Amino acid sequence: MFKTFPIKTNQHDQMIEVTHEVQNWIYEQGVKQGIVVVSSMHTTAGLTVNENADPDVKTDMLRRFREAYPWDDPKDQHMEGNTAAHMKTSTVGHQQTLIIEDGQLVLGTWQGLYFCEFDGPRQRKFVAKIIQ
Amino acid sequence: MFKTFPIKTNQHDQMIEVTHEVQNWIYEQGVKQGIVVVSSMHTTAGLTVNENADPDVKTDMLRRFREAYPWDDPKDQHMEGNTAAHMKTSTVGHQQTLIIEDGQLVLGTWQGLYFCEFDGPRQRKFVAKIIQ
Amino acid sequence: MFKTFPIKTNQHDQMIEVTHEVQNWIYEQGVKQGIVVVSSMHTTAGLTVNENADPDVKTDMLRRFREAYPWDDPKDQHMEGNTAAHMKTSTVGHQQTLIIEDGQLVLGTWQGLYFCEFDGPRQRKFVAKIIQ
Repeated sequence: MFKTFPIKTNQHDQMIEVTHEVQNWIYEQGVKQGIVVVSSMHTTAGLTVNENADPDVKTDMLRRFREAYPWDDPKDQHMEGNTAAHMKTSTVGHQQTLIIEDGQLVLGTWQGLYFCEFDGPRQRKFVAKIIQ
Repeated sequence: MFKTFPIKTNQHDQMIEVTHEVQNWIYEQGVKQGIVVVSSMHTTAGLTVNENADPDVKTDMLRRFREAYPWDDPKDQHMEGNTAAHMKTSTVGHQQTLIIEDGQLVLGTWQGLYFCEFDGPRQRKFVAKIIQ
Repeated sequence: MFKTFPIKTNQHDQMIEVTHEVQNWIYEQGVKQGIVVVSSMHTTAGLTVNENADPDVKTDMLRRFREAYPWDDPKDQHMEGNTAAHMKTSTVGHQQTLIIEDGQLVLGTWQGLYFCEFDGPRQRKFVAKIIQ
């Protein structure tokens, strides 16, 4: 059980919740228990699990990441000029593994799975695989 | 094979080793080989694998995380005022996957699994699932 | 299916691509689909997935990590003096989980798996386990 999920970002830095897309696919597959590995196919966009309630958390996190890893850094040698996006991707990680019990992703009340765009807007994709 | 582990933290920032709790559960289940996915159920507390020998490593790490992501930041918009804890959780990750061989977690001599509290003290919990 | 991969680093900070070593082992095992958990056995060396094209990305990333977590910090209490390496390891993670489909690691065009040395040069090792 493997699926590719296309995703269109529309900002330079953006956290887009994808919990429901992954959960709905698990429902469709009829999987009751196991794990799902979800993985970004990019080096300037990752995945993380964080708060799904107050959208200001996302705003703050993206701003704090910009402060930690400024976009313009005269010491960067990478021609594309997006080293900051590579840093952020390795920091949050390109992949997350979630547990499935009783057909449901096991997440806390405030936890959501986010696709993290760090060099958009772009057409992106992530993949997921279920292991029972 | 799925289990919920309650954990009580007693400091604002704290790394608590949970390797033995997870290992003992694997012994109880009689599992000889596979993987175990261990996951925090929170967005301001994560999990990481780091040094289990000198406790000063934890002290230094928690201080360095506070310096990288200061608690008080006038630009933060999140009402709860704990954006720094969300940053640290996405940095270390909410989840770790460990390998099991011959009934044992495959970890290096100095590696331990730590529950990382970034906004305590609180009653917390993490979950674990074994895949054979 | 479990394997230990020795790896010799020759710089203090170094990202060494190991995608092909892991992929070749998957070929040898004849595995067509599943996941592979790859894990560093150290607390001052981790694993990450990032760009495999322009080597300047690695140069920039290692320099930016040194700036974020300076090696010499008079506030560090850890006797070995390598707290910065512990920070970087927990930031990128000690472990990555990759998806296998049709016998191939599912990675984007520009993605490679990197062993990240943060306190070398040293003789190191990482381990991998396939779950089908």
